[in-house]
Amino acid sequence: MPQLSETDQEIFPVSAGIDDDGEITIGGCAVSELADEFGTPLYIYDEDTIRHMCRLFTRGFKDAYERSHIEYSSKAFANPALAKIIADEGLHMDVVTGGELVFAKAANFPAERLNFHGNNKDREELAEAIDYGTGRITLDSFHEIGLLNEVAGEKGVRQKVLLRVSPSVDPHTHLLTTTGVLDSKFGFSIETGAAADAVEQAMAAPNLEVMGLHFHLGSPIFELEPYSQAIDYVLKFAAEMREAHALPLTEFNPGGGFAVGYVGEELPPPISAYAEEISVAVRSGCDRYGLEEPLLTVEPGRSIVARAGVAVYQVGGIKRIPNVRVYVSVDGGMGDNIRPALYSSEYTVRRPQQPYASPTEKVTVVGKYCESGDYIAKDVELPVLKSGDLLCTPTSGAYSVPMASNYNMTTRPAIVMVKDSTARLIRRRETYEDLLATSLV
Amino acid sequence: MPQLSETDQEIFPVSAGIDDDGEITIGGCAVSELADEFGTPLYIYDEDTIRHMCRLFTRGFKDAYERSHIEYSSKAFANPALAKIIADEGLHMDVVTGGELVFAKAANFPAERLNFHGNNKDREELAEAIDYGTGRITLDSFHEIGLLNEVAGEKGVRQKVLLRVSPSVDPHTHLLTTTGVLDSKFGFSIETGAAADAVEQAMAAPNLEVMGLHFHLGSPIFELEPYSQAIDYVLKFAAEMREAHALPLTEFNPGGGFAVGYVGEELPPPISAYAEEISVAVRSGCDRYGLEEPLLTVEPGRSIVARAGVAVYQVGGIKRIPNVRVYVSVDGGMGDNIRPALYSSEYTVRRPQQPYASPTEKVTVVGKYCESGDYIAKDVELPVLKSGDLLCTPTSGAYSVPMASNYNMTTRPAIVMVKDSTARLIRRRETYEDLLATSLV
Repeated sequence: MPQLSETDQEIFPVSAGIDDDGEITIGGCAVSELADEFGTPLYIYDEDTIRHMCRLFTRGFKDAYERSHIEYSSKAFANPALAKIIADEGLHMDVVTGGELVFAKAANFPAERLNFHGNNKDREELAEAIDYGTGRITLDSFHEIGLLNEVAGEKGVRQKVLLRVSPSVDPHTHLLTTTGVLDSKFGFSIETGAAADAVEQAMAAPNLEVMGLHFHLGSPIFELEPYSQAIDYVLKFAAEMREAHALPLTEFNPGGGFAVGYVGEELPPPISAYAEEISVAVRSGCDRYGLEEPLLTVEPGRSIVARAGVAVYQVGGIKRIPNVRVYVSVDGGMGDNIRPALYSSEYTVRRPQQPYASPTEKVTVVGKYCESGDYIAKDVELPVLKSGDLLCTPTSGAYSVPMASNYNMTTRPAIVMVKDSTARLIRRRETYEDLLATSLV
Repeated sequence: MPQLSETDQEIFPVSAGIDDDGEITIGGCAVSELADEFGTPLYIYDEDTIRHMCRLFTRGFKDAYERSHIEYSSKAFANPALAKIIADEGLHMDVVTGGELVFAKAANFPAERLNFHGNNKDREELAEAIDYGTGRITLDSFHEIGLLNEVAGEKGVRQKVLLRVSPSVDPHTHLLTTTGVLDSKFGFSIETGAAADAVEQAMAAPNLEVMGLHFHLGSPIFELEPYSQAIDYVLKFAAEMREAHALPLTEFNPGGGFAVGYVGEELPPPISAYAEEISVAVRSGCDRYGLEEPLLTVEPGRSIVARAGVAVYQVGGIKRIPNVRVYVSVDGGMGDNIRPALYSSEYTVRRPQQPYASPTEKVTVVGKYCESGDYIAKDVELPVLKSGDLLCTPTSGAYSVPMASNYNMTTRPAIVMVKDSTARLIRRRETYEDLLATSLV
């Protein structure tokens, strides 16, 4: 019985395997059959992997710190079908805009388990969040403290909030996704004294009930040490604020940013290691600064859904430039996945049919967009391909679909959820009519 | 009477001015009135500028080379209302996907004036192009030569085509938008012999009528010399191919990539300079290699629409980090304009109301997306701002809207076209319902 290679087993969905025809299957469905039925480009999400990751996080953190819960960061992939699974697994969820709230509502996501994030929420979004009964709103600026206090007052509610502070810690990830440093648009800086002012102001706001603090370092973070460093710094601040302004630290959210393995050569620490590092830091910090141990929340996004998603493309033209490069063009690209162009993100690429066949050649997989930055993976070793072959990229479940555009007026891909050998469409492919829907001729 | 500063006059639409209240107007409409009526973020397109640029190109090239025409590259902004203006101005247009063809059709764009580009056109797109009577199809790979010959044969037509060759010339622009070098997914390389093989194969294809050659160097190109260098090289090749395979060079398209000024400090050569450089190179090359002077086509995209478009945002929270930076958050960002994050593109930012007021401070304008790469402009000098102020970024007419996403589940902005003191909505703002339209709960 053929099997996925050892590293591919870490990167493909947990339900992935190879069938008797030598083809990769996900959730018991052969990739080519899904491509035939739903067309390409296609995003396949594996329900087993989503549930597996939810449980791994929940268990991993409960084992290390009993009073903890997991908050899925829906910006990694906001979809009603996914939100239902997240709710079913007992997770909390964060949203960052009115639009993400709409997705949560569409899945009847329990309002009490929602946390509304974001650096620049407007009046309408805050009103919508309150109207739905959103459990927590995480405040990010003085402007928001005033605005939310006002809106909550108008609605006659006392809104539970967290304050997002910035711990001036560099987690050593991509510059575009580093958030917890001093020079950042996010949060109130502890270092500058802004965070202390924010605590004072929020504690004095009659329509806000401050539940605790939040920070976020960035994403993806492969090191553990930055978490401990930041947690200690923020807990020390919390203790000072308890003295100065009676700040309660009922809840504490040290963010997410947990890394995933996109390529076999760079695998992240296991979730249990993140859980251990964070829990030990929280407990020892509380002990050190005389704080009661808070309810601990972490907010994984990427690490819940990245591995669950596999993108499938069909090969069109192949261009061999002797002694330079072989370009394999597929029917998707930067429109459905801008991450390679934007962050130089690396992906594993496999031909689902006979993925490990010989002979192989080194190729660069590019898209159909009119731009040189439009590529999926550079210089990857694949069986010698021909037009019409399928290719798939595992760990495509996070950020690709949410950041997808209609660049070059392409229609955004269909998305299916697979489980137990059946596939259901959770988002249909866009049509030419969709492209024109908002235009007025 | 107050006026736009000298450099702003080069960057804002041609119809822009400052009214008696000291506010920037576009097409006779005050920016704040448009923001009030249509909301923010808002994209304003100025019809006068689009027509002005069409005429500048048409005249500029006709003056330098009578048998020339201008082909608008619709990937810079594909919109039916725009396509109608382009058609009305007598320009040709290129499309690169079936979706862009749909936009051309929606505007009843004359089929004979269309050119279908792209590195990986599929069977359906080629069929749709032939069905509409698309004037030219520019072939980019051996796969496409075979495929189009087949599809045209099935439909009983002989399709007029150009072959896209690669001249191995580096135009010194951003790596992501450099297309004419040897190591590129685009075109048939002359250097490797692939282009000669392509000419032979296309000339032998019974259902294809080869009209000439196309190349494209990249975008935006601030230097003139690369055009001449590439034109000479390609014309030399054309002459060789006339000998070897009776290739006609009835038409010749040396691409586009003409630069525009995004910031006052970096303004491109005038269009007449590009026209002069290209025309002289074509004429002298034809003379040198004994070719008849072909019909010349150039394909500006960015340079037709960039200056016509102005994005308008509203300020939310403002974060002052002493001795570090001032962050001004607006209600748009990388969702509606990913170019700063993707290409480190620079933009000019102005407060439309009293744009040159004192005191000023240096601020970084960021968006509302949960990502540090989400910025509009770094360290720009602006009047001291407060929440609720409007900001606008000129030269936002190219590539911002086409590359826009629903990241963080934001709704994509409304677009208005202004002329003679009136504004008409040409694309309505997306709604929460639009965000859910393709999802199946």
